[in-house]
Amino acid sequence: MPAPDFSKFSCPVPLRDYPHIVMGHGGGGALSRDLIEHVFLPAFTNPLLDRLGDSTVLDMAAELAGGGQLAISTDSYVVRPLFFPGGSIGDLAVNGTVNDLAMSGARPHSLTAAFIIEEGFSIGGLVEIARQMAKAAAAAGVRIVTGDTKVVERGHGDGVYITTAGLGIVPTGLGLGTEAIRDGDVVIASGTLADHGMAIMSVREGLEFEAEITSDSAPLHGLVAAMLAVCPAIRLLRDPTRGGAATSLNEIATLAGMGIEIDEQAIPVRPVVAAACEILGLDPLQVANEGKLLAIVPADAADNVLAAMRGHEHGRDAVAIGRVVEGHPRMVVMRTAIGGTRVIPMPLGEQLPRIC
Amino acid sequence: MPAPDFSKFSCPVPLRDYPHIVMGHGGGGALSRDLIEHVFLPAFTNPLLDRLGDSTVLDMAAELAGGGQLAISTDSYVVRPLFFPGGSIGDLAVNGTVNDLAMSGARPHSLTAAFIIEEGFSIGGLVEIARQMAKAAAAAGVRIVTGDTKVVERGHGDGVYITTAGLGIVPTGLGLGTEAIRDGDVVIASGTLADHGMAIMSVREGLEFEAEITSDSAPLHGLVAAMLAVCPAIRLLRDPTRGGAATSLNEIATLAGMGIEIDEQAIPVRPVVAAACEILGLDPLQVANEGKLLAIVPADAADNVLAAMRGHEHGRDAVAIGRVVEGHPRMVVMRTAIGGTRVIPMPLGEQLPRIC
Repeated sequence: MPAPDFSKFSCPVPLRDYPHIVMGHGGGGALSRDLIEHVFLPAFTNPLLDRLGDSTVLDMAAELAGGGQLAISTDSYVVRPLFFPGGSIGDLAVNGTVNDLAMSGARPHSLTAAFIIEEGFSIGGLVEIARQMAKAAAAAGVRIVTGDTKVVERGHGDGVYITTAGLGIVPTGLGLGTEAIRDGDVVIASGTLADHGMAIMSVREGLEFEAEITSDSAPLHGLVAAMLAVCPAIRLLRDPTRGGAATSLNEIATLAGMGIEIDEQAIPVRPVVAAACEILGLDPLQVANEGKLLAIVPADAADNVLAAMRGHEHGRDAVAIGRVVEGHPRMVVMRTAIGGTRVIPMPLGEQLPRIC
Repeated sequence: MPAPDFSKFSCPVPLRDYPHIVMGHGGGGALSRDLIEHVFLPAFTNPLLDRLGDSTVLDMAAELAGGGQLAISTDSYVVRPLFFPGGSIGDLAVNGTVNDLAMSGARPHSLTAAFIIEEGFSIGGLVEIARQMAKAAAAAGVRIVTGDTKVVERGHGDGVYITTAGLGIVPTGLGLGTEAIRDGDVVIASGTLADHGMAIMSVREGLEFEAEITSDSAPLHGLVAAMLAVCPAIRLLRDPTRGGAATSLNEIATLAGMGIEIDEQAIPVRPVVAAACEILGLDPLQVANEGKLLAIVPADAADNVLAAMRGHEHGRDAVAIGRVVEGHPRMVVMRTAIGGTRVIPMPLGEQLPRIC
């Protein structure tokens, strides 16, 4: 993907003739108001946000009637570059928080969005980020109901950092949690691993492959709803973002006090992604995903869950990749293609900084 | 106040021997977990946070029974310096969001906290910030229920940026909103103005005064509850942070389509703060506050509301500073000490960048 050309973007209304962010845009006065009215409101408009209060009041009584619970999550997004094949910081900031909510079984309801913008950043770039956030929010069925904008001096940021917080409604009757995990449960991956991290990395390293590597950034709550519809007894859901599947699997094993056994040959990785990992010396299990989930499912429900996943656009390549075992508690072990085994350790840090 | 000496702070447990933040602390792996377990959990511990899920599930049914509504708010905090007389980015990140909730009449319930930390920042400094956040959260009666930590390279941040989002419960029967504002309503300030902004400024400029100028950073929900107890018909509440009282009053006048008239002599400003403003050429009405509110109150209830405010620790110096008028709609006008009038315009930007 070529780098976006901001000269093509234009603000709906001139922003007092500033083509770039100045410190005053973060001052809370008329310039801040300009930025909100000409960049954020046109993209995010809805009756709750448009009131522009310091806080927004939501009537959740009907949503929570009958015993529903409220899920809340937050993440800061500092991905570099801001635009990459298959996505941008804008859709990541929506999908990442939507997915954190979805992993608790929640239907996403509302988002907040707070921007820390570096002095000198182009207003056109900000308009495009807001547009991509709005598109992702619409696709995920959530509204951005309140927000904030701060500006920091040149050299104290990196274009834009976005922090979203999300609210979701968890239906009654779910038993998601590590306590429920049992010997013999099946570990399912919803699709190919490592696409997001390698998309970012291929841009940063300027790698060219025959096929483009694109981020898998996507909202997963619809997939989760389809899975829970056929099996409300799903044990646990995790989205393997920073640190990749290796981190999520180790967290699950540790919290559950059980072992996890993975089949190397079952791990789905696109050939071009596998090639890129090979070139860069990266383990696909440690690379970030932004539109995939791992599920721990009772063995007798695994086929039904897999069938439901494969019927959903974000689960078409779903596959069982391993199982929960009583042996080697709190350890993740891989059965390799040549019949050996090796331990998959908890990564110390992320191989690729600022991946999300 | 002398600059804090981080050599006196210590982590509860060694953080794999890193005295400073490294990129891996933001990678989602074992180093991130170390940071969470040794810095954030000891400060913020509660059963919901301690589960360390990607999202936290709250049971709000009882809280919202009987028609209560949910208030939600978010703010990023980029204040410089991180520690200042009377506060720090830590308590600001709690009080600021608590106050945004309180201005909708809400009782604050829960906070999320997301940190963007610059590589090389001292772990001791982070421990102290977390400690001050925890202290402020305890004072405000809220729990930090979920969070996130990202690390950016040296030169792409400024120590720490914090984004909090807050949930609060709005009781039934309130009519807060600009629609309710009437000719003759009284404008009340809860205390002296411009303390926070001038505390920051005096540190940045190295000014020395006979009396120290300290930030007014404080949670205001208790004061709001005391006010609403004597007058549920309070029209509107605003906390004059960035852009100061001038910005809040202009916003109120614009949204209500009414004029506001302020008496110069009634505006409460501490003498040392007035002197500092004078030296730096700043208008106290445009300087930020972090523990004050403006209230629009029906004229016949003003005395009762003022009495209730003065009985509360954060409203002792509450005073009526003006009134709502039908003349000059959408304009704020000040009656000066010598009997003239002048327009108080909406400030263009903040006179002092990165004040919160």
